[in-house]
Amino acid sequence: MALLTPLDRAERLFAELATLSADVPGVTRASFGPVEDAAHAMITREAVALGLETRTDAIGNLYVTLPGADRDAPALMTGSHLDSVPHGGNFDGAAGVIAGLVLLERLRDGPQPPCDVTLMAIRAEEMIWFPEHYLGSRAAFGVLPTDAPDRVKRSDTGRSLAEHMTEAGFDPQTIRDGQPQLDPNHIAAFVEVHIEQGPVLIEAQRPVGIVTAIRGNIRHRFCRIEGETTHAGGVPRQSRRDAVLAGAELVHAMETYWLEAEAKGDDMVLTLGEFTTDAKLHGITKVPGLLTFTLDVRSQDDTVLNLFEHWVQKQASDIGERRGVRIDLGPYTQAAAAPMTASIRRGLVIAAEQCAIDILELPSGGGHDCATFADQGVPSAMVFIRNENGSHNPAEAMDLSDFGHACDVLYAWARSYLKV
Amino acid sequence: MALLTPLDRAERLFAELATLSADVPGVTRASFGPVEDAAHAMITREAVALGLETRTDAIGNLYVTLPGADRDAPALMTGSHLDSVPHGGNFDGAAGVIAGLVLLERLRDGPQPPCDVTLMAIRAEEMIWFPEHYLGSRAAFGVLPTDAPDRVKRSDTGRSLAEHMTEAGFDPQTIRDGQPQLDPNHIAAFVEVHIEQGPVLIEAQRPVGIVTAIRGNIRHRFCRIEGETTHAGGVPRQSRRDAVLAGAELVHAMETYWLEAEAKGDDMVLTLGEFTTDAKLHGITKVPGLLTFTLDVRSQDDTVLNLFEHWVQKQASDIGERRGVRIDLGPYTQAAAAPMTASIRRGLVIAAEQCAIDILELPSGGGHDCATFADQGVPSAMVFIRNENGSHNPAEAMDLSDFGHACDVLYAWARSYLKV
Repeated sequence: MALLTPLDRAERLFAELATLSADVPGVTRASFGPVEDAAHAMITREAVALGLETRTDAIGNLYVTLPGADRDAPALMTGSHLDSVPHGGNFDGAAGVIAGLVLLERLRDGPQPPCDVTLMAIRAEEMIWFPEHYLGSRAAFGVLPTDAPDRVKRSDTGRSLAEHMTEAGFDPQTIRDGQPQLDPNHIAAFVEVHIEQGPVLIEAQRPVGIVTAIRGNIRHRFCRIEGETTHAGGVPRQSRRDAVLAGAELVHAMETYWLEAEAKGDDMVLTLGEFTTDAKLHGITKVPGLLTFTLDVRSQDDTVLNLFEHWVQKQASDIGERRGVRIDLGPYTQAAAAPMTASIRRGLVIAAEQCAIDILELPSGGGHDCATFADQGVPSAMVFIRNENGSHNPAEAMDLSDFGHACDVLYAWARSYLKV
Repeated sequence: MALLTPLDRAERLFAELATLSADVPGVTRASFGPVEDAAHAMITREAVALGLETRTDAIGNLYVTLPGADRDAPALMTGSHLDSVPHGGNFDGAAGVIAGLVLLERLRDGPQPPCDVTLMAIRAEEMIWFPEHYLGSRAAFGVLPTDAPDRVKRSDTGRSLAEHMTEAGFDPQTIRDGQPQLDPNHIAAFVEVHIEQGPVLIEAQRPVGIVTAIRGNIRHRFCRIEGETTHAGGVPRQSRRDAVLAGAELVHAMETYWLEAEAKGDDMVLTLGEFTTDAKLHGITKVPGLLTFTLDVRSQDDTVLNLFEHWVQKQASDIGERRGVRIDLGPYTQAAAAPMTASIRRGLVIAAEQCAIDILELPSGGGHDCATFADQGVPSAMVFIRNENGSHNPAEAMDLSDFGHACDVLYAWARSYLKV
């Protein structure tokens, strides 16, 4: 009978996870929903079978630990999340959790490490469910806003985070109390493995990436342009208050700003993902009086974000005034940019060289829980796995051999870091 | 007992019409629907009570005639439509039909005119139901495309014009045969009274307008920009195929073209009434891969329309190619511009002077059945009634005293024209 290698186990777990969360097309694992629970249960079961320690905190985050010689020494941590967007891909988040399990199994079979090595399977990272950045990891550090359990509603059910957490068997009161589940001073380093959400590694033909920084972002979910709905034929240009023309001017100005920022060498990406007239009011022969849109800006540099925010507010106000429309960009959320720790980045690059794996250093456009660890002062880094067709969609496609390469880099780095 | 004047009758008919077609908010009289039928029946009943001749053609258009001394002489005609947009106002179309009834009643009480004077209550003018320009009037002249009865579907039911016409008791075969119900050589003149659909008379503080020309239009109902839906964070600018940024550039270029056309003195209005990302695909953290929109361009000058159409197709293709998206403006309909007949315009201006009513000469931005008569070579003109809050909405507000002024102008002109 052939021996089951850690990578064989990983392949089996990916298949099991795809089955238990199938929601054609793709998979759905809602934050604090029964399918996320089932994914956590699968990892717990596997950890127990491997003889590892498991613990679940009051938030629902799962910790799988290979005990070190000194249980009080700051731990080496790895991990990612297990929830997914609706009809998403199987690997976004889960690849990092399963890579952590591969690491623990490999380390278990070698000399005991000097400190604990802990895999964290994090709750509720996908903001599409609860619109709070890095919900599970920030709650673990006690830095989620204390009103979040009662203020934040899940987008599909309209019910509060507190209700969903309680239903899943966890305790929202710890968030209201700002009570931490994790102490940053007891974490020596955190490395998150994650599929790349863009095409950069595909285009560069490299299986693995080492992240330079996680971009911060500013997100406006409820931008509105209010003009006046009137007759398309009878109303002369000067009497119109056309929301679409105002919106097009604003978007065009934003894109010009973006190109200028790039030319100056500033890191920035800009997305208006939703942009729509009102189906209840609009029509081909009506001047459009209402336009709603979303705005998402990202940068490795918080200053770039803050300058853009200031500029766009002024621009919206100027265009609105000139055109007689009201442009309201609404409330926004902000996540700080997170540079990755230079010494760990270097260690990961050296580990890849040792394994003869081609890597590329690149920024992370998407936000990741790793940013929370970096924000808490934990030395932090990320390993990206090449992935085709982007993430957050069913066509997401990670090659298992690329996953294997990322696991090798993580293992080589950890052995060197732990001196085992 | 006080005598019922023609304007008292008009007021009563407006009230009756509002009641029979009430559909809160506003009124709904669908083309070839039972409420349009009821409006026609109301006019027929009133015409019979006034001792006028009535006839309904194979299309469903109603003709109310005050016989002239020479029944073979070309007739003087007036009229408008009785259908409305969904939840529209009560006066759009109906004001012109009821003004015609006022004219016939007043003329009936004077000397017999030398020729027939005929009011035409026209079917199916509002394109929102059947997307064909001037359906009822073009069918009356036998110039509707012969495939229209079977090709054109009503937007709310999805059923064909032929089915709806047959159900209402009329004969779609006459359209298939291109068989005319009206001979342009037997019409001496056509004057349509209609509420203004814009704010020009309100802003100029004039109760009545004399139309210089009816703008033609080009309408694209199904414009699409197809890019690629990808992750908002992970995909760098150069790898994006963003439909919203492409759309904003195209709209901004169109507006610049419009401003330049105006500066050259060209008459033009431009509307993108619907402009929307795809709710099934879009999201704040997704690069938008699909945008659909409508495009409506109007001008008194067909050359301006044709040049714009040529330019916008080239522009769409250039922007699409440069950005790696596919911009398809789809099929379009075109309605020719219709200059009003100078001698009738002059006659109406003189009539207004005689009645001491302030008028303004202005183009019609909206299309009207009168354009069909002009296109057939019938000497044609329009009288606009001041109207607040635009048309095609429940807030449309015509003052009955302004309606009375328009009736006075029409009557004074007709007496002068008929020499009665």
